[in-house]
Amino acid sequence: MMEFQECMGGITAPRGFRAAGVHCGLKRHTKDLALIVSDVPAVAAAMFTTNKVQAAPLLVDQEQLKTGSTFRAVVVNSGNANAATGEKGLEDAWTMVNETASLVGVAPTEVFVSSTGVIGQYLPMEKVIAGIKQAAKLLSKDHHSDAAQAIMTTDTFPKEVAVRLTLAGATVTIGGVAKGSGMIAPQLAGPPHATMLAYVTTDAVISQVLLQSVLEKGVSQSLNRITVDGDTSTNDTILALANGTAGNAPLEAGSPDLEAFSAAFEALLKKLAKMIARDGEGATKLIEITVTGARSEEEAAKAASAIARSNLVKTAVHGEDANWGRILAAVGYSGIDFNPAETMIYFGDLKILGKNYSIEFSEEEAKKILAKCQVKLTVQLNSGPCSATFWTCDLSKEYVRINASYRS
Amino acid sequence: MMEFQECMGGITAPRGFRAAGVHCGLKRHTKDLALIVSDVPAVAAAMFTTNKVQAAPLLVDQEQLKTGSTFRAVVVNSGNANAATGEKGLEDAWTMVNETASLVGVAPTEVFVSSTGVIGQYLPMEKVIAGIKQAAKLLSKDHHSDAAQAIMTTDTFPKEVAVRLTLAGATVTIGGVAKGSGMIAPQLAGPPHATMLAYVTTDAVISQVLLQSVLEKGVSQSLNRITVDGDTSTNDTILALANGTAGNAPLEAGSPDLEAFSAAFEALLKKLAKMIARDGEGATKLIEITVTGARSEEEAAKAASAIARSNLVKTAVHGEDANWGRILAAVGYSGIDFNPAETMIYFGDLKILGKNYSIEFSEEEAKKILAKCQVKLTVQLNSGPCSATFWTCDLSKEYVRINASYRS
Repeated sequence: MMEFQECMGGITAPRGFRAAGVHCGLKRHTKDLALIVSDVPAVAAAMFTTNKVQAAPLLVDQEQLKTGSTFRAVVVNSGNANAATGEKGLEDAWTMVNETASLVGVAPTEVFVSSTGVIGQYLPMEKVIAGIKQAAKLLSKDHHSDAAQAIMTTDTFPKEVAVRLTLAGATVTIGGVAKGSGMIAPQLAGPPHATMLAYVTTDAVISQVLLQSVLEKGVSQSLNRITVDGDTSTNDTILALANGTAGNAPLEAGSPDLEAFSAAFEALLKKLAKMIARDGEGATKLIEITVTGARSEEEAAKAASAIARSNLVKTAVHGEDANWGRILAAVGYSGIDFNPAETMIYFGDLKILGKNYSIEFSEEEAKKILAKCQVKLTVQLNSGPCSATFWTCDLSKEYVRINASYRS
Repeated sequence: MMEFQECMGGITAPRGFRAAGVHCGLKRHTKDLALIVSDVPAVAAAMFTTNKVQAAPLLVDQEQLKTGSTFRAVVVNSGNANAATGEKGLEDAWTMVNETASLVGVAPTEVFVSSTGVIGQYLPMEKVIAGIKQAAKLLSKDHHSDAAQAIMTTDTFPKEVAVRLTLAGATVTIGGVAKGSGMIAPQLAGPPHATMLAYVTTDAVISQVLLQSVLEKGVSQSLNRITVDGDTSTNDTILALANGTAGNAPLEAGSPDLEAFSAAFEALLKKLAKMIARDGEGATKLIEITVTGARSEEEAAKAASAIARSNLVKTAVHGEDANWGRILAAVGYSGIDFNPAETMIYFGDLKILGKNYSIEFSEEEAKKILAKCQVKLTVQLNSGPCSATFWTCDLSKEYVRINASYRS
């Protein structure tokens, strides 16, 4: 079934993509401006936050998608979200597009822009423009990790991944990069919530329409199923670029090749989603929550989402305290219809709660499972055939420390 | 307009009520079992959690409300929620009812029972029964504060209040007691979510139907508008008892007297609600959030609720960081339709954000306001005539500490 394999190279693993990441002074010491460029025109698919407050770059990107049909470049800054910045913010976002176009040598209609960081402050445009200049000179297949670092805010590690698969003799590669950390509860419209930014590059030959559907399907199973703090950002964006340099036979709707491509694409997004959840602000653990035995996938997802968002569940896992009652309570207020007396709860493979509220576990064994840096929680509702998995992280004092003085 | 005044005496301030609170060993050192008794039969109104997982005592109370028409006593334990305890838990709750009835000398149909504390553990019934025996002997008008202490879990102070008003020559008193602290996001059905427990006593002459409507209206403006952590408990309960000993002319639907009574009742619930929010686990500040200029009260409440539940807003207030962008972002994902460019934000009386994203405040003044132990945040949407107010607390490292090892 796994017809793809992971490979090195992140977003420049696919043919015909280059990247760069530089420090231009938006953040104190670390890289804060990234460029991703396709050597040839690429089709694009995108999803943006469902937040009614959309940052300036998201408005620009949506305009670009309406105007253009092929794209060449993405410019991203961290340290400043260019959100709630009104007309001036829009102007600044367009300036980033135009500067990038002229420095990279593409049309202004071919450039996307993203920003992430503090809300409500104007971008220091001199620094940004200097950064774009510097980055344009450094574009290279070797600099994907610099780009991955440059889009980080409170992330503690860069998030990149690439996968390769063979489609009717042609080798197709998909690369991805993302940042997350806080304001993570993507709800892409579909896109994800958080300030989550994610960029996927591929050399596959695929139409814009199919790329969009592959993206939406993948996001629904991955980036829209993570939460760090339940806060949906004003800036969440995922962009996918397909430049067709792999030379595969064009992917066709309903074909096994499209299915294989879609599966690899989804697996890549899940990898990124789990990295984002694992690296939630202050997180010490990745928590994977599966609700199974639900009457519909929607109900499974509702219940899993409620558990993933519960501060009480997240603090209990942080404290390695087998407080399963909080999990059951979260399912209870999730809005789904279920029978608590039929419900079973597992930590890893250890049954914690059996039917009729029977409690059958050793605290010691439960503690061992919760002490790991990856914790799987499974809720078996025993009322149907459907499942859903969400990812989140534990809630620590460090989350509070980081967010109590984010702007300082 | 304020036709009532506060008075001393909590739940035993109204005529014909006695209370007691004792330590029976469910908690290590502090009082953990309370009794509230009316000397004469009282009509009752109630609201319970909307959580699908309802603790045993809530099932018993709902049964009692179906069976009986008048009531005499409430028995409450803290330290153990008797939730997710199946048939055995139900039996235990009925035993609490029957023991209380026999010791207080009332019919078993006249007794309510509540529990709050850890989920999924059986009650140590010997201790509970011994506690009821002890409490029954101590029932007195003087012991309302003991009862207020005995229902506390992680609360740091007891929450009681009483108000008095004159209705056509008769003096009517309303008393209230509550506990909150964690799992607070009451959604009473209407009741509130959290483990919030609240009991209101009054000597007013009022029908069951009108008491229920006064309760529901009051809760919708108070206890259903607070959140500590967004987790809705399995045990939230509010019970109101009216024993008619004030001798006022029976309150009639649509009368000015009923309106005055209802206003006093709502004011009392708001006092309790603010105390619960102020005493949220780990809280250092009470945050009052008003959304105004909304097209409907429902939209105002949705937006205020989203802000009140935002971990990012709550940590920023904790850190006294004027990060207003997080407030705007929360309104953005609340699901209401509004124009961000028309939106204004105030901290206290200080305008932080003007129309068209104009930022006009001094960081120093904003910090002064956030440094207080009560912080008012106002969002003016400028799109309609409606408002709603929610209360919450800041999110601190202490919240994490408390909840990481709640069962230990």
